[in-house]
Amino acid sequence: MNIVFYATLEQADRNALQNASVVVIDVLRASSTIVAALESGAERIIPIADIETASRLVRPAERDKKLLAGERKGLPVPGFDLSNSPAEFTPARVRGRTIVLTTTNGTRAVTAASKAGRIVVCSLTNLHAAAAALRGEPEVVVLCCGAEGSMAAEDLFCGGLLLQSLGPAVAPESLSDAARIAGALAERFGGNAEAFLRSTDHGRRLVGLGFEADVAFCARVGVSACVPTVKEGVIVS
Amino acid sequence: MNIVFYATLEQADRNALQNASVVVIDVLRASSTIVAALESGAERIIPIADIETASRLVRPAERDKKLLAGERKGLPVPGFDLSNSPAEFTPARVRGRTIVLTTTNGTRAVTAASKAGRIVVCSLTNLHAAAAALRGEPEVVVLCCGAEGSMAAEDLFCGGLLLQSLGPAVAPESLSDAARIAGALAERFGGNAEAFLRSTDHGRRLVGLGFEADVAFCARVGVSACVPTVKEGVIVS
Repeated sequence: MNIVFYATLEQADRNALQNASVVVIDVLRASSTIVAALESGAERIIPIADIETASRLVRPAERDKKLLAGERKGLPVPGFDLSNSPAEFTPARVRGRTIVLTTTNGTRAVTAASKAGRIVVCSLTNLHAAAAALRGEPEVVVLCCGAEGSMAAEDLFCGGLLLQSLGPAVAPESLSDAARIAGALAERFGGNAEAFLRSTDHGRRLVGLGFEADVAFCARVGVSACVPTVKEGVIVS
Repeated sequence: MNIVFYATLEQADRNALQNASVVVIDVLRASSTIVAALESGAERIIPIADIETASRLVRPAERDKKLLAGERKGLPVPGFDLSNSPAEFTPARVRGRTIVLTTTNGTRAVTAASKAGRIVVCSLTNLHAAAAALRGEPEVVVLCCGAEGSMAAEDLFCGGLLLQSLGPAVAPESLSDAARIAGALAERFGGNAEAFLRSTDHGRRLVGLGFEADVAFCARVGVSACVPTVKEGVIVS
């Protein structure tokens, strides 16, 4: 298995994504939230880049079947049903419902990868399930979202753990600097994912905003067997 | 000392560079070549972005006092006196001479940082001298050049070793994800810089092009006391 590894969305070569198997990683928090929502029985998630379009997609009369969810700069959007805290996406709130989700990075990544042959959403929580779903693929593009053009350590860390989980199937000569740096982070900090997430720029910001529980939630490695994929622009399990 | 750390040239906020103390790192090979040239007694180095302008700056009659040096995609430029192999910059070739240098990344970095209050060129070879020259600065911008918008592991590695060398003067809360990733690389691979350089994308490419000796040359940590700085667009010791 050849690996093409991008440390930020901006570095991703759109042509390389075409027809490839793309893994989208935004640990804090879009990927983790998507996994949690589908794990809790949400029927589908429609990723939308902007708040206005998302709001138009959910008419007031539909609010029992469709929910508006998302964040901007880590904070809830006024008038939305749910934010981007994965723990909010309980079976009681989301089972059988459609979620229209708009997050700063996660939805942009899914949109960027819209021409991919296959898209898998990966977080720490579904790490091993995501790796299992990728076995046998000849080429995998790992797309770490990062934040505003800079790399996010938690996304690289998750990408590195994914490579570890893929194991000897990965062709080592295909690993670029970014992939090998991710591997070094996974090797060094893999023993305590929560402490690592708390030490990152984004983790510290979330703790400062009062989302400490979210950081702990997102740091639980391999607790979910759910593998979100994208079909015709909609995320399903 | 607060650290602002950029993993690539493209991520650097030009405003953050203004009036700051900027450390430019391009281990393979521009920084290492600049240190070697000044260590060997070159009088000054004029960094120029493009080959045509560089060529115009050196008239045939001046070829005994001025030398044309540089590379494109790692290879020598036809008609130039020197390439970008640091070992070529011996006292016999460069002592007392002006070098007009054009490299893919290094000169672009110095140009990008042209509004900085102070610029220091750092490679592994002058690591400790560069750190010593920065002591007492309230804020240091570490500018890892990277390659074509992607991070280069050897530049992050050198930046991480620089932070180590700066020691307790560094304010830990000022370290971003990129700085902490660089620190992790330095901690993990600092014991064998040459092996690490050979394992990187750029190191492997240079070995493939026959520049194995250059990689070894650039991996010698702290062998030079030379600290190149930039004065009015010219690099001097």
